[in-house]
Amino acid sequence: MDRRHFLAASSIAALTPALGQAATAPAASLFRHVNFHSDGLDFRPVEYAVRLQEIAARDAFAPDNYSRGGAVEALETKFATLLGKPAAMYVPTGTLANLLAVRKLAGTDRRVLVQAESHLFNDSGDGAGILAGLNLLPLGLDSADITLDEVKSWVERSAGGRVQTPIGVISIESPVRRRHHAMADFDQVQSICAYARERGIRLHLDGSRLFNLPLHSGKSLKEICALFDTVYVSVWKHFNGSSGAILAGDAGFIEGLYHQRRLFGGALPQAWPQMAVAADYVDSYEADYAKAWRSVEAMMALLEKDGRFSFTRLPNGTCRFFMTVRDMDLDTLVQRARRNGVFLANPDKATSRFTLQVNTSVLRSSPEALAQVFSGP
Amino acid sequence: MDRRHFLAASSIAALTPALGQAATAPAASLFRHVNFHSDGLDFRPVEYAVRLQEIAARDAFAPDNYSRGGAVEALETKFATLLGKPAAMYVPTGTLANLLAVRKLAGTDRRVLVQAESHLFNDSGDGAGILAGLNLLPLGLDSADITLDEVKSWVERSAGGRVQTPIGVISIESPVRRRHHAMADFDQVQSICAYARERGIRLHLDGSRLFNLPLHSGKSLKEICALFDTVYVSVWKHFNGSSGAILAGDAGFIEGLYHQRRLFGGALPQAWPQMAVAADYVDSYEADYAKAWRSVEAMMALLEKDGRFSFTRLPNGTCRFFMTVRDMDLDTLVQRARRNGVFLANPDKATSRFTLQVNTSVLRSSPEALAQVFSGP
Amino acid sequence: MDRRHFLAASSIAALTPALGQAATAPAASLFRHVNFHSDGLDFRPVEYAVRLQEIAARDAFAPDNYSRGGAVEALETKFATLLGKPAAMYVPTGTLANLLAVRKLAGTDRRVLVQAESHLFNDSGDGAGILAGLNLLPLGLDSADITLDEVKSWVERSAGGRVQTPIGVISIESPVRRRHHAMADFDQVQSICAYARERGIRLHLDGSRLFNLPLHSGKSLKEICALFDTVYVSVWKHFNGSSGAILAGDAGFIEGLYHQRRLFGGALPQAWPQMAVAADYVDSYEADYAKAWRSVEAMMALLEKDGRFSFTRLPNGTCRFFMTVRDMDLDTLVQRARRNGVFLANPDKATSRFTLQVNTSVLRSSPEALAQVFSGP
Amino acid sequence: MDRRHFLAASSIAALTPALGQAATAPAASLFRHVNFHSDGLDFRPVEYAVRLQEIAARDAFAPDNYSRGGAVEALETKFATLLGKPAAMYVPTGTLANLLAVRKLAGTDRRVLVQAESHLFNDSGDGAGILAGLNLLPLGLDSADITLDEVKSWVERSAGGRVQTPIGVISIESPVRRRHHAMADFDQVQSICAYARERGIRLHLDGSRLFNLPLHSGKSLKEICALFDTVYVSVWKHFNGSSGAILAGDAGFIEGLYHQRRLFGGALPQAWPQMAVAADYVDSYEADYAKAWRSVEAMMALLEKDGRFSFTRLPNGTCRFFMTVRDMDLDTLVQRARRNGVFLANPDKATSRFTLQVNTSVLRSSPEALAQVFSGP
Repeated sequence: MDRRHFLAASSIAALTPALGQAATAPAASLFRHVNFHSDGLDFRPVEYAVRLQEIAARDAFAPDNYSRGGAVEALETKFATLLGKPAAMYVPTGTLANLLAVRKLAGTDRRVLVQAESHLFNDSGDGAGILAGLNLLPLGLDSADITLDEVKSWVERSAGGRVQTPIGVISIESPVRRRHHAMADFDQVQSICAYARERGIRLHLDGSRLFNLPLHSGKSLKEICALFDTVYVSVWKHFNGSSGAILAGDAGFIEGLYHQRRLFGGALPQAWPQMAVAADYVDSYEADYAKAWRSVEAMMALLEKDGRFSFTRLPNGTCRFFMTVRDMDLDTLVQRARRNGVFLANPDKATSRFTLQVNTSVLRSSPEALAQVFSGP
Repeated sequence: MDRRHFLAASSIAALTPALGQAATAPAASLFRHVNFHSDGLDFRPVEYAVRLQEIAARDAFAPDNYSRGGAVEALETKFATLLGKPAAMYVPTGTLANLLAVRKLAGTDRRVLVQAESHLFNDSGDGAGILAGLNLLPLGLDSADITLDEVKSWVERSAGGRVQTPIGVISIESPVRRRHHAMADFDQVQSICAYARERGIRLHLDGSRLFNLPLHSGKSLKEICALFDTVYVSVWKHFNGSSGAILAGDAGFIEGLYHQRRLFGGALPQAWPQMAVAADYVDSYEADYAKAWRSVEAMMALLEKDGRFSFTRLPNGTCRFFMTVRDMDLDTLVQRARRNGVFLANPDKATSRFTLQVNTSVLRSSPEALAQVFSGP
Repeated sequence: MDRRHFLAASSIAALTPALGQAATAPAASLFRHVNFHSDGLDFRPVEYAVRLQEIAARDAFAPDNYSRGGAVEALETKFATLLGKPAAMYVPTGTLANLLAVRKLAGTDRRVLVQAESHLFNDSGDGAGILAGLNLLPLGLDSADITLDEVKSWVERSAGGRVQTPIGVISIESPVRRRHHAMADFDQVQSICAYARERGIRLHLDGSRLFNLPLHSGKSLKEICALFDTVYVSVWKHFNGSSGAILAGDAGFIEGLYHQRRLFGGALPQAWPQMAVAADYVDSYEADYAKAWRSVEAMMALLEKDGRFSFTRLPNGTCRFFMTVRDMDLDTLVQRARRNGVFLANPDKATSRFTLQVNTSVLRSSPEALAQVFSGP
Repeated sequence: MDRRHFLAASSIAALTPALGQAATAPAASLFRHVNFHSDGLDFRPVEYAVRLQEIAARDAFAPDNYSRGGAVEALETKFATLLGKPAAMYVPTGTLANLLAVRKLAGTDRRVLVQAESHLFNDSGDGAGILAGLNLLPLGLDSADITLDEVKSWVERSAGGRVQTPIGVISIESPVRRRHHAMADFDQVQSICAYARERGIRLHLDGSRLFNLPLHSGKSLKEICALFDTVYVSVWKHFNGSSGAILAGDAGFIEGLYHQRRLFGGALPQAWPQMAVAADYVDSYEADYAKAWRSVEAMMALLEKDGRFSFTRLPNGTCRFFMTVRDMDLDTLVQRARRNGVFLANPDKATSRFTLQVNTSVLRSSPEALAQVFSGP
């Protein structure tokens, strides 16, 4: 059994004294939950702390010092290698990772093309403008994609003003959280990147959930990252840290960047409690995620036979799928699942549709057991 | 025995399985170290994780969500109460806490008077200027203090320009890390604050190590904080979190400030692994620190009798003292201490002087035992 | 004869000595040109200087001091009255007027909706972003208008992010230079302004050429300005200054704003040589411009009878019209006009179309004379 | 007679008709005033307009277009040559010239050392901080000088912080307006510049009144300018424009800088009415100013013989001197001077001391006539 996702009964017994008497009962259920609403294992606090302790007790474990060295450096190196970039830096949030990236890439070319549906445009408080004097131009309204035509039109418009207002950076998020984690079309992205490179426009990938792309796009992490100057990947979403991001790029980009991390107040004196857990999940993530999808597909097949369940997926979808249910009481279903340690987001009652997300927590169960939880009783 | 500073043998035994076989030996020495170089217990990673697990396993424990609610909110409330401020917010670093404070207090009055020796001026990368358009004016060169005369002279000079350049904020750090943690003179501070209030200039206290002031100044936390609009206190230095800061102020100041925290990329998705440990140490810190000083003073008395040790303290000093040693080999002393779990910063060999810092780790030993460690054999 | 547009022969004779011998010949042709390419009289330097001298020699003339008082204040008062705003300030360029307006109106709400075709978005070098940390969102691509629906959609999107990114200001340019000076649809503008007011969003009018709107929209200057918090009007385009802008708003907005003007380096030590000439043209501009259009319409009627000329105007057009010519050599036409002191921008040879602009210089001639110039001997 | 400073009676007669009947009387007194309070001729508006007209009527005169080309470019070239710099750009105010200079020189090294007594620090509204994110550090309190020791101490301090906060620029003003136009000590400046160059710190000279330095320092314009990367010289102070500044530097620095000028709203659509007058005064200024001082020294000698007048000058003074008067009624003196077309700033009554300034307007009179005006009756 994979200790990273589960915990053996004996380990749990061993934990009991440390957890205290009151914790005895819950201890039995630690590391057992399956969820269909998050990007990862969705550790409960005590689970997180158990894993952190386990890792901190390893002989080889070394803490960081103000977010440098030790476990932080090890993770940076690991990601740089996987992404095919020469260097990488840990940043405490994805918000800051994106901000540091576009700010440094832009230099004095202050216009940045972004997706209208991106985190950078919608959920970052316009820090790029307020703190870095950049002007974000939102493209691709209501879509996961931006098109080369749109990009061209803005590049040309920006070149036609009385004052130079060059586009410094194009930032692309893929998968796109606000579009049910749909992927930006790879060919489109490729042609945009080629166009940008010709003109010296820099390229950033908000790959918060990048590690889900290879399975669905057929492109490797390195193929994707090679298109961009810098790439941000979340440390906590797929990899079960508690916060943080990796920003990878070439050596010149990363060199000295820790000064900027500190400038923004992002140099945690000790970052390891946020990210040390993640290291255990990175190397096998692609395989684990693929296994999780196979398991979910097997579950779907079983449920489709049941006749009351139907499933849909997005054309360019990644981790998300939709399950429509008929002839069942939805509340009963949700509660039964919860009693069995399977957590679902509330369905849309009007359409009897659940929005579900595949993550590696499904590896804690089997397709049959999960199908049983859904179909009941 | 105080479980927060120590760990009972039985607890350590219980930990052993979880820590794994390899960890058995070290487990015996967990939570035993005394250090004379840091602001707190200086937890080793595994100690930190053990404490975190213990806390996360409590029935009442609730995690935060993007740095809001749960354990974070509880700590905010605790600090607000102790500091006598209506509200408080957790911020992941002191650098960001100071920046958010002076930025909001300044508003459109962009000059900020600071100590030349302060963290805000020296160790923050001029984020106040680069990210917030503030101009920091450094006063009190080579001193823990700034004087009312200096303040007046700069306020008047700033009022005399062709364009309004009003002083928006005066930020005072006390104790001052770069001056061996000396305190800013309280009467001086009081008169500066009174002068500022008359003119509508806002006041910020960088009280990273504020909780050491009452013992040495005779002023309560609340008396000190009442002079200022906002106060920052470190969560990790005295209170053994792994990073973070509390920024306290009035309700209007704190309201909505979490948007700014996120803007700067400072909204950790889960902050509790950084700060949950701290809550256990806050309430009794003043008493613990006083006890630690009594213990150290008893140790000093014993060592002074020995004849080979002499001690000095700063006039406005707080946690730091100096020990000069004669007729002993300094390396031998340092190594003996280390073998006994007592950690010292390297002495200045030219003067045979150790720079030492009092913290609550000394409560893990006794004056006699500590004196013995120093005097040998 | 109107001395502001013309200059009597006797005055020109008087000028001759001052202009020096070499200038005798040109002096005869001073103040005679008609142009169809600019917004105003398009003074040649010596004409401008003559007018400036005339004005500076008036008993009542008082210079400004660092852009305050004297002729500057008089012009500010004149515009404030005409626009129906309590106060106004001279600013050396329209670029700065727009920037000061949206910067102060926005305050801490840093998103600004603008027309994609506006000067603020296209021709200001993104100063709003770089210097004021605002994010300009361009709406109404390839149109003089933005629609209420677009505005609503961006206001709602901006309210839905994880961090507050409120729309602080909507800035509307009308007429729109980059759309052949077409007007933004008044009803649309009115409904946008009503919607914005309900939500506390501030409103700025880039009315660089505002004084052309009443004739074409049927709305008075005051009716239009009442919709907006602040209004910028160019001082040099219609009114023949050499540079500068008026920014009008309520008293609280304008009060102290001269400090910001100076901050940006926009406080000319003496502004009067740039704007004193303009004062003579403001009061009667609306009437003069209407007269100019009547004259041009009479000219058009004459030329349409000729058979070789056809004219088109934009649906929401203001000063611009188009003249298509057949059976004539275009170069001959342009050169004949020039010889007769009538200046045209070069036509589009492919379509034989001239883009022409009505301004008060046509008052220097008659419809018949102008028609004659076009149709030729 | 030098038409640039005076105007012949015949010219004035010629002006009369243009100036209008009301202006006949004043015309007789045009171009006659001497002032002891300004940096230049202190043209009255009509005088300025007369000179502008005269220049605009020249065959060779060409206006600028948005501050580029024509008279602007000619002046830029003239100054570049005189200052020994490869390139120069006109900027509408000295405030903006300094700001553009330090902003571009600083790049990402955001600390700037300035004199505490400088215009940049005192009279620019902290635009360097607010608009460019620079932190100005004021050195040399109450002095025209900053010392190499001070510079070193701040460079070292800035290198010692936890985050890089490198000094990007040292800006030196000389002469210093707020120190009665005293010069910064040349040797001191030279050693500071040498020290800075070694460390890659860039150097800016606020030489608003630079052209007064050679006479008093024995150093040529080019010698002085060679120490600095960029130099700003006022166009209106010594050279009788109405506003504006020249910013000179190397070709790479000036190239494309007009985009930044426009970004700040500093691209006057027509700048020539501000600066065209200045061109006539630049070439001979050094000689004229030296002549003016000789004339003033002759006047002083005459007045010292009178016995009631005594004079003092600053050790490092330039244009300013002080005249203490005894046994005379000061008001009577001021009024008699005014009646004779000699303008003085009001004296300090407590000390009977006048603060006087030498400028080229003294060339309009003779030492004897001026002495007579002072000594009366």
